[in-house]
Amino acid sequence: MQPNTFGNLLSLTTFGESHGPAMGAVIDGFPAGVPVDVERDLQPHLDRRRPGQSKITTSRSEADQAQILSGVFEGKTIGSPIAVLVWNKDARSSDYDPNYYRAGHADRTWEEKFGHRDYRGGGRASGRETLCRVIGGSFARLLLPDEVSIVAFTRSIGEFEARDLPERLTINDVDRHPTRCPDLEVASRITETLERCRDEGDSRGGVVEIWIDGLPAGLGDPVFMKMKNRLASAFMSIGAVVGTGLGDAPQASKARGADFHTGVAGSGPHAGISPAACGIQGGITNGQRITMRVYFKPASTTGSMAKKGRHDPCIVPRAVPVVEAMAALVLADHFLSRRLDRP
Amino acid sequence: MQPNTFGNLLSLTTFGESHGPAMGAVIDGFPAGVPVDVERDLQPHLDRRRPGQSKITTSRSEADQAQILSGVFEGKTIGSPIAVLVWNKDARSSDYDPNYYRAGHADRTWEEKFGHRDYRGGGRASGRETLCRVIGGSFARLLLPDEVSIVAFTRSIGEFEARDLPERLTINDVDRHPTRCPDLEVASRITETLERCRDEGDSRGGVVEIWIDGLPAGLGDPVFMKMKNRLASAFMSIGAVVGTGLGDAPQASKARGADFHTGVAGSGPHAGISPAACGIQGGITNGQRITMRVYFKPASTTGSMAKKGRHDPCIVPRAVPVVEAMAALVLADHFLSRRLDRP
Amino acid sequence: MQPNTFGNLLSLTTFGESHGPAMGAVIDGFPAGVPVDVERDLQPHLDRRRPGQSKITTSRSEADQAQILSGVFEGKTIGSPIAVLVWNKDARSSDYDPNYYRAGHADRTWEEKFGHRDYRGGGRASGRETLCRVIGGSFARLLLPDEVSIVAFTRSIGEFEARDLPERLTINDVDRHPTRCPDLEVASRITETLERCRDEGDSRGGVVEIWIDGLPAGLGDPVFMKMKNRLASAFMSIGAVVGTGLGDAPQASKARGADFHTGVAGSGPHAGISPAACGIQGGITNGQRITMRVYFKPASTTGSMAKKGRHDPCIVPRAVPVVEAMAALVLADHFLSRRLDRP
Amino acid sequence: MQPNTFGNLLSLTTFGESHGPAMGAVIDGFPAGVPVDVERDLQPHLDRRRPGQSKITTSRSEADQAQILSGVFEGKTIGSPIAVLVWNKDARSSDYDPNYYRAGHADRTWEEKFGHRDYRGGGRASGRETLCRVIGGSFARLLLPDEVSIVAFTRSIGEFEARDLPERLTINDVDRHPTRCPDLEVASRITETLERCRDEGDSRGGVVEIWIDGLPAGLGDPVFMKMKNRLASAFMSIGAVVGTGLGDAPQASKARGADFHTGVAGSGPHAGISPAACGIQGGITNGQRITMRVYFKPASTTGSMAKKGRHDPCIVPRAVPVVEAMAALVLADHFLSRRLDRP
Repeated sequence: MQPNTFGNLLSLTTFGESHGPAMGAVIDGFPAGVPVDVERDLQPHLDRRRPGQSKITTSRSEADQAQILSGVFEGKTIGSPIAVLVWNKDARSSDYDPNYYRAGHADRTWEEKFGHRDYRGGGRASGRETLCRVIGGSFARLLLPDEVSIVAFTRSIGEFEARDLPERLTINDVDRHPTRCPDLEVASRITETLERCRDEGDSRGGVVEIWIDGLPAGLGDPVFMKMKNRLASAFMSIGAVVGTGLGDAPQASKARGADFHTGVAGSGPHAGISPAACGIQGGITNGQRITMRVYFKPASTTGSMAKKGRHDPCIVPRAVPVVEAMAALVLADHFLSRRLDRP
Repeated sequence: MQPNTFGNLLSLTTFGESHGPAMGAVIDGFPAGVPVDVERDLQPHLDRRRPGQSKITTSRSEADQAQILSGVFEGKTIGSPIAVLVWNKDARSSDYDPNYYRAGHADRTWEEKFGHRDYRGGGRASGRETLCRVIGGSFARLLLPDEVSIVAFTRSIGEFEARDLPERLTINDVDRHPTRCPDLEVASRITETLERCRDEGDSRGGVVEIWIDGLPAGLGDPVFMKMKNRLASAFMSIGAVVGTGLGDAPQASKARGADFHTGVAGSGPHAGISPAACGIQGGITNGQRITMRVYFKPASTTGSMAKKGRHDPCIVPRAVPVVEAMAALVLADHFLSRRLDRP
Repeated sequence: MQPNTFGNLLSLTTFGESHGPAMGAVIDGFPAGVPVDVERDLQPHLDRRRPGQSKITTSRSEADQAQILSGVFEGKTIGSPIAVLVWNKDARSSDYDPNYYRAGHADRTWEEKFGHRDYRGGGRASGRETLCRVIGGSFARLLLPDEVSIVAFTRSIGEFEARDLPERLTINDVDRHPTRCPDLEVASRITETLERCRDEGDSRGGVVEIWIDGLPAGLGDPVFMKMKNRLASAFMSIGAVVGTGLGDAPQASKARGADFHTGVAGSGPHAGISPAACGIQGGITNGQRITMRVYFKPASTTGSMAKKGRHDPCIVPRAVPVVEAMAALVLADHFLSRRLDRP
Repeated sequence: MQPNTFGNLLSLTTFGESHGPAMGAVIDGFPAGVPVDVERDLQPHLDRRRPGQSKITTSRSEADQAQILSGVFEGKTIGSPIAVLVWNKDARSSDYDPNYYRAGHADRTWEEKFGHRDYRGGGRASGRETLCRVIGGSFARLLLPDEVSIVAFTRSIGEFEARDLPERLTINDVDRHPTRCPDLEVASRITETLERCRDEGDSRGGVVEIWIDGLPAGLGDPVFMKMKNRLASAFMSIGAVVGTGLGDAPQASKARGADFHTGVAGSGPHAGISPAACGIQGGITNGQRITMRVYFKPASTTGSMAKKGRHDPCIVPRAVPVVEAMAALVLADHFLSRRLDRP
């Protein structure tokens, strides 16, 4: 029973409550001799997830400065577990009432399960928990070949969906706008909506899309640890996520097979590869881009409580680096696993 | 590295290639003293998944008779691992060419990963592997309280979606029609389509929806073993599944928070429960029905090969008991885990 | 790959290097609602392991004050991971030379494995790592029924072995003498020897014996997670331990079966219980005392380095609480596992 | 809860009761493309463990012919789980009485744990279970470099201990005598004793010693998956094993540090290596021979039941290949793990 541990060969164990003293991450199974620099490798990802980045996010203000406690020596990993702490600073516990169950939140269900819980700001069920995932993902990225690119972005928020997308995107491209929507016209309409949500105590959900490029064919472990179900589990473990799929899964479920399966069978070098597979066939990468969508429900805090300003009217923009981090963890695990495939 | 093992406290390990001598399942962590009868508890579920049930499924004909090798004595479990075998009989290996990679299938990617593979009928990547899941699920069901009901059905195939649904469904209701679509008008249009697909070598995907009723609040293990991500991983590990979500996840991502979150906050007995949560809040059951959708892409075998008749033009109807089995495994695991929640 | 995690249902993950900023322990799978008080439940066990307790132990001086970072709220556990930190204070890193491999230590082998290592005081291979085990064990004790008693003591050091032992022992009995040898005449001879060792730069090993009383019959999980092999693994994972066994295992290997097996067969209430089993039959407790011995080799630091005074001439006395902690972790795990034995 | 699974990267799951239809082993995590031949690679090891080999072993007669059900195709592994069955043939269930608890056996404790059990011949607790370990070990050996040699032998039975040992031993050397004691003079005295035991319904235990040569330095995973504790756990999980240690552990616990630690400190190529470490320092191999002893108590079946002849008066000779198998599993796991040590 390690419900707070993610991963197989590379494992991330997280701890910490939103209003406790600190959040922490312990990474085990990380190879020795990998150069690590907090300012270069970790902090930028944490900063992308940090609250208070723009007027469409929560006003909780946290520096979220990472401190490495073990596993790194003289600037390189040493093969022992890497522990990273982030202290909680701007925690206003008095805002919370132990006998009040917020609708749509984890308050009620955690109470039912555990009987006793930290009711302050969601405790362990707070979105703040995701910063530990970003720490883990930052380390995981260090294990990926240079040619691998993991970029997530806001595909849609509420009814507004990005349409005009380039063929490739970088993190910089995505971060150009606070909504993390790369279709700038759509982005500005999203901003308007979210500002109005904030004033009115309303909220929105949306879709984060992730593109993973540069992968070799042959990553993924059948039968129950396929690339697709491990990514799905990774994404669905994030707070407000309600669904996920390869490409546009509902659309795929309606397609005609004869139209959908455009790949060529046979024995040539590309035979058997199907473009519609979104990068994964039989649970294993086919060398093409993995495209997945992650569906978020509207943020649960609405009404008068939402107007106080310490909640995001939409968590999708800040979830973008979290989705990337989870993908990085799964990928790094599969890159390690790949070393075990043959004699 | 146990990529062929599913589950945590209750584990299912499966083995077997489609055209090898047998398929097998080993279940560990199963409590002692539980009555088991193959004909009553196992065979009906295997029969639901069995090929050759109607003219819209493959003509491969397998009795799929389960044989228990261990773990059951004098009609009851004994706490030791339960091993179940199903021998492969109607395997026509000569149909397959080692140098031919079928498009959209696992042929190419498994070759890339492992170098050496069983190319006959997909080998381990064949849909036949799912019968071991049904075995595991049948045992898992024996651990669930009587009031728990797990019923999956064909929500849609291709463009045809069931609309007229009763409030409750039983397995018998679902099995009334070979399509397993409980909206009989839609079911008959699906049948027409699939018969045409079969003749034309075309295929369809669709959506399996699952309703899980009778669960107590408080099931699920935060943070990385939430009920929602474990169900998602369970479903996404099935062959042709391309997506999954709570209720209509894409629709939820477009909703306004003020409309979506209809639950009542406060401190009363139902306070904090949200009907839109589809049964899961903070990763833990809230005591209401869990509704999930599982999206299948069109079957990969199309064209002349599909016309030979040993493939399903649409695997959705036969996938219904597989989706149920995976849900049963996850639920039984969480029911066991629940015993560990408090002192 | 979680080589730094111990346990199954109750897991302990540890991190930290001897001369890094801190040592840490993360405990997952711990039930909610259990009262915890650092001063009452944790600190006494840490104090028993602490260096600088007497003139026969190292002069490194550490307060080893535990700080809980998560998982405990309002004095009770909340079902989320419990993280505990102990900061390293009296770390004199300048004592160590990166190019010097101490004989018998882990220096050389960790270098061979990882290429890059923290050479200061053994880094992660230091005995200081065991304080995290004591933290874990302290929490594990909270899950054991009151009637369970875990008491370890110094059975022998060097050639001196305790002979005159009472039928029962408490921790207080054992702590009456700094050697933790309850045979006080032998204890004083051990003290003389260790003082001389210290002056001469010599060292000794010895035997810790552990008595576990008050266990019910039926604890332990066949086949690979038997009580006996999990305890053996727990003890053998401690730094200088070179062997372990039930009772006097070498003696048992020489006995005649007819003499050794004094238990009575048949069908009465005690039938089948064997006193010579030292509490475990078929890997499962039989309701009698578990007696195990844990063999330690002489401390590796000898000669001029040993005379500097920051090493124990014999780690056996300080290992006593570590052996107890490891046993507590195994037992608590089996008590949790027992909840899963029957429907 | 997979108490019937052993290993981490390479896993062995076993099932089967002594008097059930079959014993089985499932090996997962085994690399693809490794040539396997049942007659060459498996059967010889099974034959070494088989009952009825000589007049000093049980008269139960089993061919123990292995049948591979999956994971091997065209003579090579394919990366999917390898399932192997051995059918039980000479099972005389009528010999056993459900209400009779044999002393020293697992009968009583399994009854206490599970309530319901297979009482025939020990069921799952029978020594017959170890044939699955031998299957697993045979596959594990295929993953070891050619220069690795794993040889176990009978060090002592009862009071008779082998003294005159060559510097190296092969399996053939060991198998020269049915006792598997390479000191032939001692072997013949053992034979006399065991024949007398058999006539008198008496039994003996003994010591299996294992020598593992040809290992590189750097194998083993700190802190809780050290080479020494994983080997200890592997050995202690075998039925009648009551203790284990590196070399002569009780003797080491009595030594003077100044005498024991003969290794040379410093910075040269062999600096830091200690001959007394028996091959493991800090839990990691140092490149020298690993020597371990495994202590067995006398066989539990004595008296009139023992005279019936279907029990071994001493299981030590037949345990030799089992000890080797467990070592091979641990070693193969560490060889796989080693691939993950560095970037």
